[in-house]
Amino acid sequence: MPVHASGHIDLTRLQEVLDGPWVEVRNAHRDQLDARFLPVYGETGDQARERITRLLHELPVELGIASAFPTEYGGRADPGGSIVACEMLAQVDLSLMVKAGVQWGLFGGAVYALGTRRHHDAYLRDIVSGSTFGCFAMTETGHGSDVQQLRTTCVYDPQTQTFDLHTPHEAARKDYIGNAARDGRLAVVFAQLISGGRRHGVHAWLVPIRDERGDPLPGVTIGDAGPKAGLLGVDNGRLSFDHVTVPRDMLLDRYGQVAEDGTYSSPIDNDSRRFFTMLGTLVRGRVSVGGAAAAATKSALTIAVRYGDVRRQFPAPDAGREVLLNDYLAHQRKLLPALATTYALHFAQAELVSALSAAQGGDEPVDEHRQRELESRAAGLKAAQTWHATRTIQMCREACGGAGYLAENRLPGLKADTDVFTTFEGDNTVLLQLVGKGLLTGYRDEFGSLDGWGRASFVAEQVREMVLERTAARSLIERLVSAVPGRDDEVAVTDRGWQLTLFEDRERHLLDGVVRRLRNGAARKKDRPFDIFNDVQDHVLAVAAAHVDRVTLEAFVAGVEDTDDPAVRALLSRVCDLYALTVIEAHRGWFLEHGRLTPVRSKTITGVVNSLLKELRPQMRTLVDGFAIPERWLHCAILAEEPGRQETMAAHDATGADLPAGSV
Amino acid sequence: MPVHASGHIDLTRLQEVLDGPWVEVRNAHRDQLDARFLPVYGETGDQARERITRLLHELPVELGIASAFPTEYGGRADPGGSIVACEMLAQVDLSLMVKAGVQWGLFGGAVYALGTRRHHDAYLRDIVSGSTFGCFAMTETGHGSDVQQLRTTCVYDPQTQTFDLHTPHEAARKDYIGNAARDGRLAVVFAQLISGGRRHGVHAWLVPIRDERGDPLPGVTIGDAGPKAGLLGVDNGRLSFDHVTVPRDMLLDRYGQVAEDGTYSSPIDNDSRRFFTMLGTLVRGRVSVGGAAAAATKSALTIAVRYGDVRRQFPAPDAGREVLLNDYLAHQRKLLPALATTYALHFAQAELVSALSAAQGGDEPVDEHRQRELESRAAGLKAAQTWHATRTIQMCREACGGAGYLAENRLPGLKADTDVFTTFEGDNTVLLQLVGKGLLTGYRDEFGSLDGWGRASFVAEQVREMVLERTAARSLIERLVSAVPGRDDEVAVTDRGWQLTLFEDRERHLLDGVVRRLRNGAARKKDRPFDIFNDVQDHVLAVAAAHVDRVTLEAFVAGVEDTDDPAVRALLSRVCDLYALTVIEAHRGWFLEHGRLTPVRSKTITGVVNSLLKELRPQMRTLVDGFAIPERWLHCAILAEEPGRQETMAAHDATGADLPAGSV
Repeated sequence: MPVHASGHIDLTRLQEVLDGPWVEVRNAHRDQLDARFLPVYGETGDQARERITRLLHELPVELGIASAFPTEYGGRADPGGSIVACEMLAQVDLSLMVKAGVQWGLFGGAVYALGTRRHHDAYLRDIVSGSTFGCFAMTETGHGSDVQQLRTTCVYDPQTQTFDLHTPHEAARKDYIGNAARDGRLAVVFAQLISGGRRHGVHAWLVPIRDERGDPLPGVTIGDAGPKAGLLGVDNGRLSFDHVTVPRDMLLDRYGQVAEDGTYSSPIDNDSRRFFTMLGTLVRGRVSVGGAAAAATKSALTIAVRYGDVRRQFPAPDAGREVLLNDYLAHQRKLLPALATTYALHFAQAELVSALSAAQGGDEPVDEHRQRELESRAAGLKAAQTWHATRTIQMCREACGGAGYLAENRLPGLKADTDVFTTFEGDNTVLLQLVGKGLLTGYRDEFGSLDGWGRASFVAEQVREMVLERTAARSLIERLVSAVPGRDDEVAVTDRGWQLTLFEDRERHLLDGVVRRLRNGAARKKDRPFDIFNDVQDHVLAVAAAHVDRVTLEAFVAGVEDTDDPAVRALLSRVCDLYALTVIEAHRGWFLEHGRLTPVRSKTITGVVNSLLKELRPQMRTLVDGFAIPERWLHCAILAEEPGRQETMAAHDATGADLPAGSV
Repeated sequence: MPVHASGHIDLTRLQEVLDGPWVEVRNAHRDQLDARFLPVYGETGDQARERITRLLHELPVELGIASAFPTEYGGRADPGGSIVACEMLAQVDLSLMVKAGVQWGLFGGAVYALGTRRHHDAYLRDIVSGSTFGCFAMTETGHGSDVQQLRTTCVYDPQTQTFDLHTPHEAARKDYIGNAARDGRLAVVFAQLISGGRRHGVHAWLVPIRDERGDPLPGVTIGDAGPKAGLLGVDNGRLSFDHVTVPRDMLLDRYGQVAEDGTYSSPIDNDSRRFFTMLGTLVRGRVSVGGAAAAATKSALTIAVRYGDVRRQFPAPDAGREVLLNDYLAHQRKLLPALATTYALHFAQAELVSALSAAQGGDEPVDEHRQRELESRAAGLKAAQTWHATRTIQMCREACGGAGYLAENRLPGLKADTDVFTTFEGDNTVLLQLVGKGLLTGYRDEFGSLDGWGRASFVAEQVREMVLERTAARSLIERLVSAVPGRDDEVAVTDRGWQLTLFEDRERHLLDGVVRRLRNGAARKKDRPFDIFNDVQDHVLAVAAAHVDRVTLEAFVAGVEDTDDPAVRALLSRVCDLYALTVIEAHRGWFLEHGRLTPVRSKTITGVVNSLLKELRPQMRTLVDGFAIPERWLHCAILAEEPGRQETMAAHDATGADLPAGSV
């Protein structure tokens, strides 16, 4: 028998579970970031940029945003803390968070990860303190997803011992670059390294782009990306280089060095592998974006749930007053599954941040297998969290009706500001494809590359092991799975082991299907490798999505297991049921097609989901209060007026008391 | 054998089919609305309002926006033309469309539909010409969906022969009112009519709110709703009335009159029925919003499809250049089903506009059954079209990557401006519930009202007839359905009759299920009518959605049948297949649960959908060109630069030609 989530919850206990190990970082932000840092509604683009730049200078760096850097440069050697700081800033102002992310994450992070001692000593202190602002100039107008194909060139000349950085045509200009249009003095510029007439793939240089007065340096053309859907406070711009001379030592040369005479050397021979190793060091950006998206989702849900707890509409025939929005099944069907998914992703993110912290926090090099796993997890969760944010914030805005369309109620800004998250720091579809291909690693190792999908036959066995690798509480999950009693139809749909088995089955079977189809495709279309892969692209994306779902559920299950407080644990367990069952319900077509659910059991799941909604209805407010967002950070007029406006309506409504009950 | 859609399409023929009977209205807008009328990116709210107000004065009314009014007041007695004009304006600028809709649709429409001769003679000419701007002041802060419960009062005093209009508390203020914050001189104000101490339900008055200089009149407080997610050019405001005196003859008294002595009379006795009759006359607003949402969706799809036809990313292993986005299966899976749904909804909207035109265009009163049918259709299609717009424009913005986030590429504006459509002119969830309850009309007639869902037992038989009533090409649909040969599993999934049967089955079975559950609920929970209904609310919404899907497919089928050109007809038929099969695929869980699909057949559908994507890939551009949106109206930088930027990249890319193929 499942424990019902009806007990009294000690909110502090719930908040402790969600706050996790970086609780000091969270609380420092909650305590110190006051109303001054919150969004201003109705600003012009210039006003927003000016304000955010000012706030960036005022932001107490010691709160955590720069904590990934070594202590000797002003950091705390705590990459996990910097991600948590991003999450907190995302609940304050998303422009501030993105601009901070560009400065201390992308720009500073690239100097640290791709540069060597001389770059660190010369620049990191000023970067950490915020006295030097910089850009991360990778994306070009013509190449955003496939950054290995960047067209900007940087050619070494041994005569002058300098590089020549050049933008060959308009499509090669750097585009959407944060900090470029207004504030950046330096940029980490990615370009094709050419020396002695040979290409060595994409590398990065640290390039000054503005002088002390803020004017572009000679040869540098700076444009403005102009008005955007949101993030008005971030100065995205465009950079072009007309044969700009870059000193040899400005190459960030941790992964590739050019000697005075132009000789190229690198610890990694293969250009492609070297480039992806370089990119891999920047994984923190993706984890931060996923976390920020989740944080904004929590703000939106808090607003919508609290509004739905005071807003009434339509009289009940059997009650003296109108019905609270949250009492409608349709409203619960919108808010509660989204809330459950937010909880699930919270635990997956927490687990990822801990893993990344363990990997990057120490001095030892990370082994490649673990690094790959981390990158795949970061990519998949970034996609899942940002899409969940886009859908959920949209739903929350609709759940607040016309009020949700007004800037003063926060939701329009949350929606517009987070919207770009689904396509920046890696387009979500491309990221999921990366995850899907990663699951075929067994095949890649066999054939050297996944480019030629159809070049040879595949061996399926190697896949199993990779797919079923579990990072979270491996033994717990295995125990739950193996404890599922008897035949499927006799097990309660709330049996955790059965739920885990279903998630696992879906991932494994989808992957087997891709392998089979690729093998068949390879046999029939040997000469058309693109077609072989393209024919199964939707299938590969489905595998990746199923993988992320499974990883997320496992993290949630582990999180429940780690919770000591019995009432909080019981509540989380029911929320976990709701997450698992709504995912199964959403994919019940697949489960029915593949004999994993009978029609009767499939209908049962819908019934149990509705029962869970009823059971969790009284806990909706508790569940959003668990996010522990400071009251002043919500910055939302319809909540600020609570209970004033709503109670006024009910209490003083002399004229409405005897109105006839309406019918629609 | 289905005819494949590979033949050459004469674009003019396709455009003729889509343009339909109001082609002159469409072409007049296309010809006369030049770049001056297009959105300006990055404006402040004040700038946007000023510009849109100016443009509203410059808008040639004779193009069609005011054509619903009688000729004697400057109209053309053509309500269909005015809806089509809204659709066209929505492709130019959505603020302009909404502001025009407030003026000539809501405000002018209310004066016309709810007023009588003296109001028409005194005001309509100036309203039609645009020399008097007005508001439609219905929604209050506390009541948006349940407008029968408005709290504003208007009390008649026979001594002075005037009304006293009053806002009793803050929740009763009029909120979100277009034209209120800046331009409106008059407002149609909805309030509870009280005379001789008796209430007579909600009525409307024509109330001056500003003097000649634009200052609020005594007793009128005007506020500003402030910055919004979008529609910056529309001056939404808040109105409160402090015992404002309104002359007796300013009551819009078509449906309810107050004599000098205060005696109330009405052609409709029941307050509730009278109010919904009054609301029903305003159905044109919902049809216009649905059409405008569809028009904006077409703009977004045109941009995304055309960008996907020039944008390349990632090299193919077996080709000399990078792959066009539209050649990826995943991209087709995003764009083509959305395009097919847009076509389906286009035909449903066209049919609705014709039906509304036939009903409202003549002088004869509309019979109540037909009026109800029209209102239900308008509600359902408004919900379907506006949600489709929100989802599709979001998807299009993501399909354009970072470029889709820049204002200069139009998509952010399309998204933000249409976002409110899902909750204004009736919240979509509330509208679908209205449709769902309407399908239970048989029961309502039996029991007088649907308020007391559980008051008695139900009779199921009466429902059938109502549900299966078909407005579109009844005999054609019946012929197709009855022509389905043999057993289900032997019929091709592209058999139109089989598809229609599946849509019909889903609607009917869902409705039967609701009836059964309501009956059971009534037996068990006699004393809790709210719970009885609330327990099945999600089911009622599912019935409504299935109904709208069925009506939409039938309209599409009828539209294909009406198409003369064989190549265009073959193309539309395949697009109709894609629509029908993606809807079935999306609901395959339900079909499998209910034995309407076998697992094998369900998988077949996914395979056929993917084949259709491949077949329709070469026609993507044709399908968006069919919308006939003038090139200058697209107003999108990434298209304006086409082919320049893209070709430049390919042609002059001396540096990139020998780059190694990338692997991800």
